[in-house]
Amino acid sequence: MELSSLSLRFSRETGLELLDQTLLPHTERWLHMSIPERMIEAIKSLRVRGAPLIGISASLFWTHWLQSQSHERTIAECYQRLRESRPTAINLMNNLDTCYQAWQRAGVQAALQQAINLFLEDVQLCERMAEWGNTLVEPGDQILTYCNTGSLATAGAGTALGVIKKAHQQGKNIHVYACETRPLGQGARLTTWELAREGIPHHLILDNTAAFLMQQGRVNKVFVGADRITKKLDVANKIGTYALAVLAKHHGIPFYVVAPSTTFDDELEQGREIPIEERRAEEILGFWQGSSATWSPPVYNPAFDVTPHELITGIVTEKGLLGP
Amino acid sequence: MELSSLSLRFSRETGLELLDQTLLPHTERWLHMSIPERMIEAIKSLRVRGAPLIGISASLFWTHWLQSQSHERTIAECYQRLRESRPTAINLMNNLDTCYQAWQRAGVQAALQQAINLFLEDVQLCERMAEWGNTLVEPGDQILTYCNTGSLATAGAGTALGVIKKAHQQGKNIHVYACETRPLGQGARLTTWELAREGIPHHLILDNTAAFLMQQGRVNKVFVGADRITKKLDVANKIGTYALAVLAKHHGIPFYVVAPSTTFDDELEQGREIPIEERRAEEILGFWQGSSATWSPPVYNPAFDVTPHELITGIVTEKGLLGP
Repeated sequence: MELSSLSLRFSRETGLELLDQTLLPHTERWLHMSIPERMIEAIKSLRVRGAPLIGISASLFWTHWLQSQSHERTIAECYQRLRESRPTAINLMNNLDTCYQAWQRAGVQAALQQAINLFLEDVQLCERMAEWGNTLVEPGDQILTYCNTGSLATAGAGTALGVIKKAHQQGKNIHVYACETRPLGQGARLTTWELAREGIPHHLILDNTAAFLMQQGRVNKVFVGADRITKKLDVANKIGTYALAVLAKHHGIPFYVVAPSTTFDDELEQGREIPIEERRAEEILGFWQGSSATWSPPVYNPAFDVTPHELITGIVTEKGLLGP
Repeated sequence: MELSSLSLRFSRETGLELLDQTLLPHTERWLHMSIPERMIEAIKSLRVRGAPLIGISASLFWTHWLQSQSHERTIAECYQRLRESRPTAINLMNNLDTCYQAWQRAGVQAALQQAINLFLEDVQLCERMAEWGNTLVEPGDQILTYCNTGSLATAGAGTALGVIKKAHQQGKNIHVYACETRPLGQGARLTTWELAREGIPHHLILDNTAAFLMQQGRVNKVFVGADRITKKLDVANKIGTYALAVLAKHHGIPFYVVAPSTTFDDELEQGREIPIEERRAEEILGFWQGSSATWSPPVYNPAFDVTPHELITGIVTEKGLLGP
């Protein structure tokens, strides 16, 4: 095995395998990404997810797949389709563009090596973010986090969850509140799973319960990840993040974003320019419909929101802390 | 049939029947409240719910049941057990106390008549709240609401949802965003069902999406119900209400509570004195566990929160608008 993480395996011989994150924590099923359609389906249906991991997975898939291809147009089309498979997280575009340029400049082997480097670099990025972020955590902190930003979202320890793991490893006696993260429960299913693996004390709460905990003084820091960050440091992240930022501000609680430089968009000035993916009503209705699909109220289901920079205490990157 | 509403039927001959709200909107199953254990179970498991309706149902059940009882101690014990079946909504205690006093003062027939009067009065209270509340709604308003506060929560048209229905009936061309209301989906299952019955344009959203709509200027009023209101006008309501109040404040959006005088607690000064019910982890985990119940992370599941009066623009009661 050339590369391996909690949810990704890659070798030059067999290509890319991904852990199906829609089945966690109950079932650990690995999927072989044999053809572009499977890879695109895995991204669209969130079998692979987390802004850094989507970018790395798509890059490893594409650069491995193009070894067996001879038609430049087919290769370029596949790159475009992968690039458009989800619109909000910028890592997908950033990473694929890097590999595409390597391919054009230096050929298929260089492109593959570039994708492998992206994986290896991400492990290092996570480690450096965790070290910087850890300097913000004080002993006994009660930390609120959102969605999943751990080893299931990156090649390494994670972004926000990487910081939390580091603080725990250093014996800071922290307690974590993991928000459920409707509709797909990345907090409920994935973050609690990672926290339990690491032995970090935690509770699962509903997204609508964060404010009540803040009001009671039971949260004193918020750490979240990011899907895209603009030049003005506005941050797109999982729907519900913006609400937490407003609530943290109201309660005087520091609100930190943790994201590597691969999540920054050098072309967008402000948050309102970020495309926000809208997803199917069934993601929300599925829980309530049961077997009866005749009942189907109109649904608005945006997958992301944008937190303006003025609500963010600081952004932890691999280079240090950005912000006022 | 002596009394009848969307989710309650009562006659002196057969007693009380309730629509099982846990099965809506898929199945309409009526349950006969034959013995105290069934009534208490129906309250605890939210087969009957909504602060006004819980109080009225428990009162109708108890005053009908005591017709067939001869032991004063058994009657008083049943009253106590019903009174303690859920701790937060005050209507349950207020209504049962009224009936208990009628029984002690004037006997079993007077107690039953008192319970019937509570039902009939609630229909009137709803109508008056709707009329007062409607004066706050302007044509074209985009209204956010939470949980279910309609005909499934009262004997009449509802509290907050009663206002919304009235505004719609008066042709005010409103649009409603109904929050899902995790964990039990009263907004997703019950409010969308009532809105569809009335032909009121609406969308279902996740609880974590309200802030994003406010940020986009797509919500210009919030109407919610209440489970208990203190002398200082602090309001206990379904968990998630407090978050919406903070978010509304941040965005400069009026936040209204709609509740009859039966929801006021004359003995409590401030919100922090209100007992907050904590419920089972399974309410949250059920969705994610599927058939595997081996995975069971620690969960914090409070059913209510408290919104301090300074975040509330006004409280609509049957007597008019309370507040600054």
